Amino acid sequence: MSDALLDPASLEGLLRPRSVAIVGASNDPTRIGGRPLRYYRENGFTGAVYPINPNRDEIQGLKAYPNLSALPEAPDLVLVAIPAAGVVATAEEAAAKGARAMVIFSSGFAEMDEDGTDAGQAMQRRLGEIARESGMRIAGPNCLGVFNATIGHYCTFTASFDHGGFPHTGGIAIVSQSGAYGSHMATLAREKGLGTTYWMTTGNECDVQVADCIAFLADQPDVDVIGCYIEGVADAARLVAALEYAQARRKPVVVMKVGRSPVGAEAAQSHTASLAGADQVYDSIFRRYGALRIDTTEEMLDVAYACTRRTFPTGRKLGIVTISGGGGVVLADAAIAAGLEVPAMPADAQRRLKEMLPFAAVRNPVDITAQAFNDMSLVTKNVETMLAEGGYDLIVNFFTSIPRSKVMNARLRPAMQEAARRFPGRLQVMCMISTPEMTREYESDGYLVFEDPSRAVKALAALCWYGEAFARPPRLAPPDLPAGALPAPAGPVDEREAKRILAAAGIPVVEDRLVRTAEEAGAAAAQFGGPVVLKVSSPDILHKTEVGGVVVGLASPADAAAAFTAMMDRVKAARPAARIEGALVSPMIGDGVECIMGISVDPAFGPVVLFGLGGIFVEVLKDVTLRVAPFGVDDAARMIREVKGFPLLDGARGKPKADVDALADALARLSVFAAANAGRIDSVDVNPILVRPAGQGVVAVDALFVPRT
Amino acid sequence: MSDALLDPASLEGLLRPRSVAIVGASNDPTRIGGRPLRYYRENGFTGAVYPINPNRDEIQGLKAYPNLSALPEAPDLVLVAIPAAGVVATAEEAAAKGARAMVIFSSGFAEMDEDGTDAGQAMQRRLGEIARESGMRIAGPNCLGVFNATIGHYCTFTASFDHGGFPHTGGIAIVSQSGAYGSHMATLAREKGLGTTYWMTTGNECDVQVADCIAFLADQPDVDVIGCYIEGVADAARLVAALEYAQARRKPVVVMKVGRSPVGAEAAQSHTASLAGADQVYDSIFRRYGALRIDTTEEMLDVAYACTRRTFPTGRKLGIVTISGGGGVVLADAAIAAGLEVPAMPADAQRRLKEMLPFAAVRNPVDITAQAFNDMSLVTKNVETMLAEGGYDLIVNFFTSIPRSKVMNARLRPAMQEAARRFPGRLQVMCMISTPEMTREYESDGYLVFEDPSRAVKALAALCWYGEAFARPPRLAPPDLPAGALPAPAGPVDEREAKRILAAAGIPVVEDRLVRTAEEAGAAAAQFGGPVVLKVSSPDILHKTEVGGVVVGLASPADAAAAFTAMMDRVKAARPAARIEGALVSPMIGDGVECIMGISVDPAFGPVVLFGLGGIFVEVLKDVTLRVAPFGVDDAARMIREVKGFPLLDGARGKPKADVDALADALARLSVFAAANAGRIDSVDVNPILVRPAGQGVVAVDALFVPRT
Repeated sequence: MSDALLDPASLEGLLRPRSVAIVGASNDPTRIGGRPLRYYRENGFTGAVYPINPNRDEIQGLKAYPNLSALPEAPDLVLVAIPAAGVVATAEEAAAKGARAMVIFSSGFAEMDEDGTDAGQAMQRRLGEIARESGMRIAGPNCLGVFNATIGHYCTFTASFDHGGFPHTGGIAIVSQSGAYGSHMATLAREKGLGTTYWMTTGNECDVQVADCIAFLADQPDVDVIGCYIEGVADAARLVAALEYAQARRKPVVVMKVGRSPVGAEAAQSHTASLAGADQVYDSIFRRYGALRIDTTEEMLDVAYACTRRTFPTGRKLGIVTISGGGGVVLADAAIAAGLEVPAMPADAQRRLKEMLPFAAVRNPVDITAQAFNDMSLVTKNVETMLAEGGYDLIVNFFTSIPRSKVMNARLRPAMQEAARRFPGRLQVMCMISTPEMTREYESDGYLVFEDPSRAVKALAALCWYGEAFARPPRLAPPDLPAGALPAPAGPVDEREAKRILAAAGIPVVEDRLVRTAEEAGAAAAQFGGPVVLKVSSPDILHKTEVGGVVVGLASPADAAAAFTAMMDRVKAARPAARIEGALVSPMIGDGVECIMGISVDPAFGPVVLFGLGGIFVEVLKDVTLRVAPFGVDDAARMIREVKGFPLLDGARGKPKADVDALADALARLSVFAAANAGRIDSVDVNPILVRPAGQGVVAVDALFVPRT
Repeated sequence: MSDALLDPASLEGLLRPRSVAIVGASNDPTRIGGRPLRYYRENGFTGAVYPINPNRDEIQGLKAYPNLSALPEAPDLVLVAIPAAGVVATAEEAAAKGARAMVIFSSGFAEMDEDGTDAGQAMQRRLGEIARESGMRIAGPNCLGVFNATIGHYCTFTASFDHGGFPHTGGIAIVSQSGAYGSHMATLAREKGLGTTYWMTTGNECDVQVADCIAFLADQPDVDVIGCYIEGVADAARLVAALEYAQARRKPVVVMKVGRSPVGAEAAQSHTASLAGADQVYDSIFRRYGALRIDTTEEMLDVAYACTRRTFPTGRKLGIVTISGGGGVVLADAAIAAGLEVPAMPADAQRRLKEMLPFAAVRNPVDITAQAFNDMSLVTKNVETMLAEGGYDLIVNFFTSIPRSKVMNARLRPAMQEAARRFPGRLQVMCMISTPEMTREYESDGYLVFEDPSRAVKALAALCWYGEAFARPPRLAPPDLPAGALPAPAGPVDEREAKRILAAAGIPVVEDRLVRTAEEAGAAAAQFGGPVVLKVSSPDILHKTEVGGVVVGLASPADAAAAFTAMMDRVKAARPAARIEGALVSPMIGDGVECIMGISVDPAFGPVVLFGLGGIFVEVLKDVTLRVAPFGVDDAARMIREVKGFPLLDGARGKPKADVDALADALARLSVFAAANAGRIDSVDVNPILVRPAGQGVVAVDALFVPRT
């Protein structure tokens, strides 16, 4: 377990308390302090429940206590539903009494500091300190609580149970920073007949974060999938550690990370005041640690539902059985768009299916046509042939509204039951217009049931995505920082020094000679032999091309010498005050693909390494990818393949394949340097780094360090 | 009305018959020939229904006739449910009797010609001839029929009514080439409470095509929106004309054109044997004529539902009211992703809202918070302030499951009714977890009701898309072909001739001189003055660079002369048999952006003009767009802006803006040339065409004509 992760079992008191004290308990079962009490009573919670209220002896039929100290035992969990001003004292009292966990409904903390004061934030910080000092875990403040449906532990004041009833138990766990949106997800899940045993909202996260919840849930055997709603992340390392923890336990995490758009990000910020990292950084983190990021609540529930089968295939081959040619085409298109494969049935099997029903399409999609109505054995035979002989990882059966007909379904269901029974490990979907009862029936036979074919294949693709993430070999360790590595500079440095730092970090750089006269320039060119490049050397000039400080393709020593003289005149005229040390002469590398790599610092995740191809790729097409530092060459190799311009490194347009192994090595080394210098760097641009043909390595040609100020 | 379009009113007999004859009528109401008869009886169809069956006197209680000739009148519509072999004779008999329309359920036509014979196709062709000769419109064969729910005209054998009842009347019209998928859509619509008065399936389309249905429906005042399922198009011009017809009548068309993926395209082909054009061509056609292409059935119904409000805004400004901060963020993200704008409320209005409720977010999204539960007047005031002062074209209200609570809804609904009443023309959405009854209530108040926020904003964006398409100025006419235009060549031509043809079509080409000796090369270079380009001239060498037949950047006449000699040696060595006329000398254009334009021929839509930027854009990134020829400069200008590399023409990287007007003119002229030479061209590549700075025009530098063989 990573150091960044707290012990997941420390949330036991929050989710499985044997006793609960309610500070601010109300006799009115519709009030915030009254609802949880009512929910406990109505759901048979067997633990002790202690209402705390100095003004009453009895609340909702239970003996009330004036304060926590008066309780006969240390409660596992203390629920706080009193105004903000009294919360810190209550937390101190609870910690002193020996409580293991606390849930704070009260608002009026960091989210209220819009007026510019730090008062709410200060109280919230103090709550975090109490948690850390005492070991008592605190959820909230400004949260909607938690529940564990298995034991009737409804420590929440959400009103959403009023009109739809309490949740069913089941394998979909929900974690949400937003209480109202967490309720919304749980209500939708219940409407769709999905069970949500565990539900946790974290609000302002003075202590318990989404990451803690993920780790706790990853350890629960009755959790199939963890669905998270995230607005921002305060402790990035903890999130990364939690995702890694869940991945190692093959527990799928589905994430709705909002704030993709600037408007959304701003709205999220004002909602929770959480520190938001760049959206693309979140993307890369979730992808790297096998958490699937989705964009809509509907997709969240679709994926979560599909995960309840706990089958995560490592292949993407989809077989389609349909009674409507059109349905088959829709499914095939949607499957390809979702990244699945729709390979043809083996020729021999096709021949046999064709013999059975000459009109049928038998390739895949297999279209039984409306003939299925007349002879249901065709369905069994076609489905079983696909399962037995097609080598498919997944099967979708499209039956439109046929199962709605009692007469038809009486024949269809036994046919499908047989298919499911004979191939129990296979992921099979019924795609049909169904009723809730019929859905439950087919589910109990082993099918996933979807109405919309496009949503069905998207959810299946998600299962494959998890299958791949769970099967991935362990991440490689980042390379070691070389012994002689230099620190990132504290002030501006010229190109030569920048390259020296890179070289010391293990990144190959182009050779150069600092020359101070035209004669020296000519001599250096002669020494290198081929054509050379001349660049002005000055700590005061960061953008050399803007002052005519770069000349490429100098073919002879004489050309180099002449270019030196002309350049010095140009640059001095353009920047009279600059300290000019002379110029750098470097050999001209003609056979490299121009790439860019760099470091920037994300407010939430720290140093991040960027990569893209040079020229229009980064500047016009914004074709750039990134990873949080540090990482190994495996991640670096994936980065290289993520950019759209990758074909240019892979032999497009008749060029030789470029040395992507050396490039991956350079990226990984840059990431290690970035991590080692986290506090010293504002940004680094290595532009260009030339990637030569395979086996010939890379060379960084120029670099620009911007220190943290 | 375009010539390509048949008179839409000619489908009256199909959709509003006063009398229907059923050939192959069955006494068994579950058989194909028995179902329509039963459906007519059960739905109060008031026209005459004539069962035709030589073996019975009475069928399902109606007098039966031995054949069509025996009928007391010419039936408006003849329905055919007999084996394929008898269908042609029946069609002839029906036409002779004077029927206005025919629906053929029978299969066994072109879709059965997999064995390589043309028998089914031949019968189908004959049916088409009968239709054209007689004016009797024929739907099918191999179709599931049509219905018009208003008059109980259920001319279909779909079994989908058995378990869910007959459709409701309403403004969503459905047209489908696939019968089963058409049923699937209608069933889903009914499940969601959406009315579908008109439903038409076209099957093999011997006569009536999807295009005819679109045009007919565009004329119906009780149609709000036309939803189409299309697998392929036989008569592209008719489809284009029908889309244009609907657009002119502000009747939105939503299209699910399947076969995007190669697997899907293949499955579609085997399903209807229709001639499929390239997917991107369909995209460009739908976009051009204001038909919205969607990818899922769910989106089809979402958009269709939203269209029933018949409000198509020309602005995209969305106001969001929420009682959950999280819901607001989700909505804002989804809105931006869907292409809507989420601008802030005016500062003054923000201030007043803040005074009303200090915790609230008031910018947009406006978050009333859970405080709405306590004071419902906050909802009214916030919503009305947004409507009155925000300048929003669209408003989405996110209330999660609140309306499910009877107590809450008793207060919420009047508040929302008031808002709807005061701003009747505005598109307003309630986003909530609802019951069917509650949905109907809010709909009757004027709201669209969606459960999922992401789906809601996607549907709203579709309405804006139609609003823009309907408001667009009339398309510009394509330019005239110049008087001296040359035809596309019948055989291979060299570069010089190719450029002569382009120039005659009105497209500027680079000047050149054909030189036969080194001396002539030098002289030509001297004449042009600046640096020149030298290219081998030979009708036998299409790809000049492959044989070293292109040298650029020849600075002096001497360089040009020397390069000529060297090139002739190289090319002769590489291609000893080629006829070499000499070389072309052209001035070198240094200030142009390299673009590519060309012509290819789509199997369904004919000549198509392609456009992209040169180099990696087309070759590596496949960044290319296209239009069916011919078109005007307005469409050409849109094409130019569709490619991702457009910023390079628009002044990216500090370059001057390129002459996109001249480029648009060249594209439009190429499209006119393409259309005029439709039968003679296989492909044309103008590569590169250089786009010089604004005001300085374009020059085509090279062109390659591949004639049709």
